[in-house]
Amino acid sequence: MNVSELDRRLAFLKEIDQLKSVIRRSPLIDRSRRENSAEHSWHLAMYAIVLADYANAPVDVLRVIKMLLIHDIVEIDAGDMPLHEPTDPAGQAQRERAAAERIFGLLPEGLTTELRALWFEFEAGETDDAKFAKALDRFQPVLHNVATGGGTWIESSVSLEQVKSRCGPPIERGASALWTAALELVESHYRVGSGRKS
Amino acid sequence: MNVSELDRRLAFLKEIDQLKSVIRRSPLIDRSRRENSAEHSWHLAMYAIVLADYANAPVDVLRVIKMLLIHDIVEIDAGDMPLHEPTDPAGQAQRERAAAERIFGLLPEGLTTELRALWFEFEAGETDDAKFAKALDRFQPVLHNVATGGGTWIESSVSLEQVKSRCGPPIERGASALWTAALELVESHYRVGSGRKS
Repeated sequence: MNVSELDRRLAFLKEIDQLKSVIRRSPLIDRSRRENSAEHSWHLAMYAIVLADYANAPVDVLRVIKMLLIHDIVEIDAGDMPLHEPTDPAGQAQRERAAAERIFGLLPEGLTTELRALWFEFEAGETDDAKFAKALDRFQPVLHNVATGGGTWIESSVSLEQVKSRCGPPIERGASALWTAALELVESHYRVGSGRKS
Repeated sequence: MNVSELDRRLAFLKEIDQLKSVIRRSPLIDRSRRENSAEHSWHLAMYAIVLADYANAPVDVLRVIKMLLIHDIVEIDAGDMPLHEPTDPAGQAQRERAAAERIFGLLPEGLTTELRALWFEFEAGETDDAKFAKALDRFQPVLHNVATGGGTWIESSVSLEQVKSRCGPPIERGASALWTAALELVESHYRVGSGRKS
């Protein structure tokens, strides 16, 4: 392994520090500020460790964690697109693909190939690992919105039916037991009227 | 799996959201603010993925990543203790052990046992996995200090000899090639005089 091989790895690790400055719409549970995409990715990896038993099919936890740790890195170039207020989804998808090429391309070839493939696998959401990873990525913000009395649902005037249609299918596809639990929390939240009525 | 089993897992995942509000001394590379312990943990897990080839001995990457994702969770109760300005290390170690019991104890028994054991293994730093994880935890802030023209070394009046004695042994123990690379950067930093002279 020569020095320039290590230099490329360190350049990548320095570049991705910027993910700590990509701000999501979701609040922290204590409502002190919005979450950034780096700490969100850490939280999701912890979700994978703690909730792997709830995947619909057996998963490779290391692959799921890797997907979750890297899934938002493209936002360094493309920015975060809020689920409940999407703008130009086709353009966003194109910008994210270009970002994946550029950012993972900073690494030596073997790692570029591995991480880029994992990122595309996550995006496609067809394998059991990707389905579970995507379920967690949709499940965590639901819990944050419930815990903060509405969060982005209130901000973006989201109805119960919209939460169900936007969050239900991806969570159910990867971890149906988690959607059952989430749905109970979401319905209870809308029932007590602390959020908007559907 | 009954509902209370899931409830315990979700209570743990909610509790650890607080790690996003534990502020470390190290700056982000763009110097916009200090790093928090959740995003630091994400970054270290990425270091493990990208630098696993540089471990002194073969490591189990999943175990290393898990250690790095959980190693700072005790700071929710105990706070972060800066490397270059430690206060009451014995008391801190005791507070961290108590925090490990409380926070990992929120989980169902099997997960409590697994994560607590991984946390103690990391702290002890005796296994190959723990040595490598600890090396990365010490390596990343060195790179941030170099990248920010001195960072916490300037703030805490740290000499070149102090950097070498505090960071060298733990990095060398887990990944000697990374210490070789770091030392070159550190010496160059102190040589050009942007930091304090040793």
